[in-house]
Amino acid sequence: MSRTSPEHLDRIASRLRTTYDRAPGINDATAVALPDRESVGLLSRQLLSLLFPGFFSSEPVVASQLDTYLRSHLAALEATLLEQVARALCFRARREGKEVAASAIRDLVAELLLDLVAVRELVITDVDWAFCNDPAAAERETVVLSYPSVEAVSVQRFAHRMYKRGVPVLPRMLTEHVHGRTGIDIHPGAAIDESFFIDHGTGVVIGETSRIGKKCLLYQGVGLVAWNPLAKNEAGELTRGASNKRHPDLEDHVTIYAGATILGGDTVIGARSVIGGSVWLTKSVAPGSVVRVEDPELVIKQRKPK
Amino acid sequence: MSRTSPEHLDRIASRLRTTYDRAPGINDATAVALPDRESVGLLSRQLLSLLFPGFFSSEPVVASQLDTYLRSHLAALEATLLEQVARALCFRARREGKEVAASAIRDLVAELLLDLVAVRELVITDVDWAFCNDPAAAERETVVLSYPSVEAVSVQRFAHRMYKRGVPVLPRMLTEHVHGRTGIDIHPGAAIDESFFIDHGTGVVIGETSRIGKKCLLYQGVGLVAWNPLAKNEAGELTRGASNKRHPDLEDHVTIYAGATILGGDTVIGARSVIGGSVWLTKSVAPGSVVRVEDPELVIKQRKPK
Amino acid sequence: MSRTSPEHLDRIASRLRTTYDRAPGINDATAVALPDRESVGLLSRQLLSLLFPGFFSSEPVVASQLDTYLRSHLAALEATLLEQVARALCFRARREGKEVAASAIRDLVAELLLDLVAVRELVITDVDWAFCNDPAAAERETVVLSYPSVEAVSVQRFAHRMYKRGVPVLPRMLTEHVHGRTGIDIHPGAAIDESFFIDHGTGVVIGETSRIGKKCLLYQGVGLVAWNPLAKNEAGELTRGASNKRHPDLEDHVTIYAGATILGGDTVIGARSVIGGSVWLTKSVAPGSVVRVEDPELVIKQRKPK
Repeated sequence: MSRTSPEHLDRIASRLRTTYDRAPGINDATAVALPDRESVGLLSRQLLSLLFPGFFSSEPVVASQLDTYLRSHLAALEATLLEQVARALCFRARREGKEVAASAIRDLVAELLLDLVAVRELVITDVDWAFCNDPAAAERETVVLSYPSVEAVSVQRFAHRMYKRGVPVLPRMLTEHVHGRTGIDIHPGAAIDESFFIDHGTGVVIGETSRIGKKCLLYQGVGLVAWNPLAKNEAGELTRGASNKRHPDLEDHVTIYAGATILGGDTVIGARSVIGGSVWLTKSVAPGSVVRVEDPELVIKQRKPK
Repeated sequence: MSRTSPEHLDRIASRLRTTYDRAPGINDATAVALPDRESVGLLSRQLLSLLFPGFFSSEPVVASQLDTYLRSHLAALEATLLEQVARALCFRARREGKEVAASAIRDLVAELLLDLVAVRELVITDVDWAFCNDPAAAERETVVLSYPSVEAVSVQRFAHRMYKRGVPVLPRMLTEHVHGRTGIDIHPGAAIDESFFIDHGTGVVIGETSRIGKKCLLYQGVGLVAWNPLAKNEAGELTRGASNKRHPDLEDHVTIYAGATILGGDTVIGARSVIGGSVWLTKSVAPGSVVRVEDPELVIKQRKPK
Repeated sequence: MSRTSPEHLDRIASRLRTTYDRAPGINDATAVALPDRESVGLLSRQLLSLLFPGFFSSEPVVASQLDTYLRSHLAALEATLLEQVARALCFRARREGKEVAASAIRDLVAELLLDLVAVRELVITDVDWAFCNDPAAAERETVVLSYPSVEAVSVQRFAHRMYKRGVPVLPRMLTEHVHGRTGIDIHPGAAIDESFFIDHGTGVVIGETSRIGKKCLLYQGVGLVAWNPLAKNEAGELTRGASNKRHPDLEDHVTIYAGATILGGDTVIGARSVIGGSVWLTKSVAPGSVVRVEDPELVIKQRKPK
């Protein structure tokens, strides 16, 4: 097939190049390289290979070589973290006219690696809780091998540690990576206590400033979101980030059925409450509440025979 | 970039290792290796390459070499099935203190390969039904090349055969693989008759014990789910699996619009019924019913000029 | 593991082969090869690498070599387009008993490459608009690196140019590729003006004949869909494609919250309107309207102590 003339391509290249001066420009390695998507995918897989050995890789683990497995996988995760965390910190520092010491990056990565132990303790409770709550799960292994909640929540728990330790950009890329894979969108800022399970999961959204207690259970399509996401401060600007508490909290042992939406940063769902499917809730409810939509009037007619 | 001290990594490895004694432990090849995700993805592609030759691979088929194509793809699918079905059966057998004969695995795989013919007959009807029902489809080839329903339903139809033949874990991994790719979550237990189409599809959930008649049509976000998924038996345990009929049935020629939810194992939607968008339905309706939400009161105000 | 007998595989191959005579048959390279999924994925990545240099590839760009980068990526995109556009055009032509001149393909690809400049101008406005509307976005770079809306809308904008220029099959494959990755399903026929943002995005569906004005903002689960998708013409057939205006229009500066559904080809949402979550709307509203569901009766009870 004959090709376009070189002059035509030159004209297009030239016109594109002028647009890169405006934001977003190019991700320029000679300035500061940003974290990259491919490494974020690798990071997610490396993390899961340590949280659930043999369940997320094509080869199962040989138990007698578990020490070797652990050391080599920890070293691989460390290498990815060192590079990607450095990129994220240097990007933010440069915007603020600061520098980042190499020792600060190394120390932060050492802390993140240690966080793995606490995250592993939590994901054990998540798998148990899923198994307790889904009649379709015949055994815990099926939960780990095929429930999107395990992947989405495990990666978010690690991303949340990164977020708390002040790493920019990278935690959000991690949770978006699993959002693409599972349809479950949990912001890394959300603080989730032990034993959390989302069944099916597609369409779930959990906002940056939500706090979720122990033994909560969500179904597909549930939103824990902002009531007035576009509220502006006195200067007419959005108040960004964690300081703007705009998403609801769940106390312990709350169940929320499919498609329900809970809104607002002051909204608290009391312990042991059950929120029915498709409920739209903008205010707090006391512990032990059962909330459902008043049965809507359904109009039922018979089709005319043709 | 300098790295964390070896002692630090040793401490983390040691602490992680102690947590693997609790469930979920490690997927241990020296005990019984579980089916693996990568092979499940391969299995899905091998299956689709036989159901729709040339439509799911990067190279189209050369018609004159179709026999060679078929034999080599069947042999490849057989190899993957032999390995993964063996893993799944041995895992379940070991839990029950039993053994699995090699001949039993071979015979089961032979039957699954023969199931391909019946599945192919069904997926032809699915493509026809999609083409009949979507004004955006200019030709059947576009349906096969770009409709997520084709991938999700075709793989589920094969996984359903596996499920009926008693293969554990693996069928659920197959349907979760396509759930991740399409947003359509159909449990392998669901029994779906010919001519089934889900338009758009994201957020659809169909439970383990649903039965769906011929010529049904669903839109995005539809749920065929359990009314009381956490109901427990007298011993206080969840009743697991197919014996607990908890998801609804659709008779022939039922249409369900976007976001509607049908609940409960005794609920039957009669033939030729039409269920409107966002309907929440917990009881059966007679054949020929048209069900819609009573027009909700919409509050419409005018924004104040600034 | 011993294998199935060759005779068994022969029987299956023979029975499958007879089913390929019916549509969908095989994608036959000796007749006309259809566009292939793998190349469509490549096309999407090549496109994004030119719209956001360094943000969608594993290596960031070196600014001093930007000209080389641009020329090599444009040439690579051109090669993919020439092959895939040729396949799509020849497929359609063959159905109509026509031929396609090589010069027609080359000229069409030259125009599509030039379209990149206009698409780049638009995606800059999309990133700005996302940053203005999401309090969770700390900087524009995070938007480009981790917001699914950027990938889904950018690829749709290019696919829409292809669609307008009469390329069959391929534009729909492109938007379905990003639907699978993001849960956002925008038909290539939809005409979207500058500054468009979809937050979270999972479950969004925008139909073939929708038109969307400047500065519109959608949340997850919003549908701009057909009211009566199965309406038939006098001959009893679906009226297919763009000539059947069946999806709604949004004027400038319209905001639609999560889970709302707007239906029908005559429905127009007036400028500066705000549509609340879960609204179901089948008729037009005047500019400046604020539409919400009348607060549904919520039934709130207390759980009995066990």
